[in-house]
Amino acid sequence: MSANRPVIALTLGDPAGIGPELVAKLLAENAAVKDTHTVLIGDRWLWDEGQRVAGTSLELPEVASFSEARQHDCPVFLAMDTVSPDQVRYAEANAAGGASVLAVLGRCIEANKAGEVDGICFAPLNKYAMKLGGLGHEDELHWFVEKLGVTTFFSEFNTLGTLWTSRISSHIPLKDAHSYVTEERIIAAASLIYDTLKKAGFAEPRVGVAGFNPHAGEGGTCGREEVEIIAPAVEKCRAQGYPIVGPYPADTIFLKARDGELDAVVTMFHDQGQIAIKMLGFDRGVTILGGLPMPVGSPAHGTAFDIAGQGKANLPPTRNAFNLVKAMCSQ
Amino acid sequence: MSANRPVIALTLGDPAGIGPELVAKLLAENAAVKDTHTVLIGDRWLWDEGQRVAGTSLELPEVASFSEARQHDCPVFLAMDTVSPDQVRYAEANAAGGASVLAVLGRCIEANKAGEVDGICFAPLNKYAMKLGGLGHEDELHWFVEKLGVTTFFSEFNTLGTLWTSRISSHIPLKDAHSYVTEERIIAAASLIYDTLKKAGFAEPRVGVAGFNPHAGEGGTCGREEVEIIAPAVEKCRAQGYPIVGPYPADTIFLKARDGELDAVVTMFHDQGQIAIKMLGFDRGVTILGGLPMPVGSPAHGTAFDIAGQGKANLPPTRNAFNLVKAMCSQ
Repeated sequence: MSANRPVIALTLGDPAGIGPELVAKLLAENAAVKDTHTVLIGDRWLWDEGQRVAGTSLELPEVASFSEARQHDCPVFLAMDTVSPDQVRYAEANAAGGASVLAVLGRCIEANKAGEVDGICFAPLNKYAMKLGGLGHEDELHWFVEKLGVTTFFSEFNTLGTLWTSRISSHIPLKDAHSYVTEERIIAAASLIYDTLKKAGFAEPRVGVAGFNPHAGEGGTCGREEVEIIAPAVEKCRAQGYPIVGPYPADTIFLKARDGELDAVVTMFHDQGQIAIKMLGFDRGVTILGGLPMPVGSPAHGTAFDIAGQGKANLPPTRNAFNLVKAMCSQ
Repeated sequence: MSANRPVIALTLGDPAGIGPELVAKLLAENAAVKDTHTVLIGDRWLWDEGQRVAGTSLELPEVASFSEARQHDCPVFLAMDTVSPDQVRYAEANAAGGASVLAVLGRCIEANKAGEVDGICFAPLNKYAMKLGGLGHEDELHWFVEKLGVTTFFSEFNTLGTLWTSRISSHIPLKDAHSYVTEERIIAAASLIYDTLKKAGFAEPRVGVAGFNPHAGEGGTCGREEVEIIAPAVEKCRAQGYPIVGPYPADTIFLKARDGELDAVVTMFHDQGQIAIKMLGFDRGVTILGGLPMPVGSPAHGTAFDIAGQGKANLPPTRNAFNLVKAMCSQ
């Protein structure tokens, strides 16, 4: 009912996973969706199945387009027909499920381009199913980037409470990771996560950059990237007005973060951040697709096929993801 | 007084750090050194200074050689003259301190070769000081290896309570780490940590091997080391009678370890294990120099120059290191 409230698209995720039941639990919590115009989008039967598993029985007003969301003071349901029940079996990643996910997210993206959607919170996807279902990119982030026409730096951010991480390379062979350690990528990643933290409500984000080599290269005696690339990149960030710090050794920078001295860590490769954030408590984690023109977030965990359809799925990461997208829409 | 009790050499570490005060605290706890013949070895003035800082006032019988230790039922002191007080300033790594450490450890090694010492527990060293003081090796482990004539695989182990880690490469530039991922090194590292855990009292050690690439290579689509090298190495271990498991993704294998499913993780490069073990609580950690003919251990932390000489140093890692060396001597 309010033009100030963001319109947030909420999707059910892979139909064979825990997404539908998580969305049912989320919507049953009025607190999370308060102050938004939330549009649940997906297949009717799948939403019903999610509610059955979660033990909820919400009746959402049905709308025919995102633009009708503002006429309602509660979450609404936008039906699509992307997959049939006989194509889905719990815990089975298949092409039909992956194609369904792509169809739903594709419609959300079009609605954003049309100015009808401010942000997206999606329930867990299955990359393998999406590839079977037509995803030609290495992951959903690269697909979003193409669909949204992004030409600047982008990065997945993993957040855990108040700690954020980004990385300058992701799903690539580790022996190639050194070729991604460039001043340009580090400056782009550090400034993007700084700006994103601002959007997420951090008044003065404290962003640190990790080293690449053991002990951050020990002054150049154990790898040269810190001396020749990373430290100069940090200096250039500072010259541009970004108060970035580092490089710090990868095995101690997360202790600083854990102890509240940093809000975000820019990592040099996938497992640097992933090892740390999973040790810190991945079960609370949220993934933000950084560098897109709108906030897009998701719980950091996957489809959890081992417990799908059992009603056991843990709501907090999905709640955290939704709240973060909401906060970022409001800035 | 008993031939069954191990003779353990205990050193004061770098004179500018927290080693002397930690050793004083350790010896003041009778429980730790019980059932051993412990020989504290080092400079008399430095031992006095450690006691002053720690607020202890033990009087240890002085011996002239390690071989006299068995004549006493309590810890004894073996004096050396390696460094003078005017050469040492707290928190300053220098050549005199490094040379002192090398002289003391060198004498312990000779005593082991002569059959007079069963194991060594050393207080924190400073690698930089040791290099200034004459260490020509990349670290103390490589120095021990040469002094002891080791020709088989060796590796630093980091242990934290019941979790052990080893690695197939250590202080090398990360871009070279892939060249250390060989079947031979993985088999040697996995079998060595298995055998060492047995010596440390684990009846049936559960050892897992980490992958090298993100998500352990995603079935070969994101790096080939898992498919071509690591998995075959694990198979060969099993064929040799070692019940090794893996490779598992580096960002989840430590959750298995934390949750008690594994006793040890063989990592593919320095920071894989170091990030995880520091997140798990490095302040309890112990380092074991694995692959030597005798147990050699130390607290995993460093010289902590920021608090040296203040009496604040935390005893548990040193106590844990001593207890582990003692346990390994007794097998």
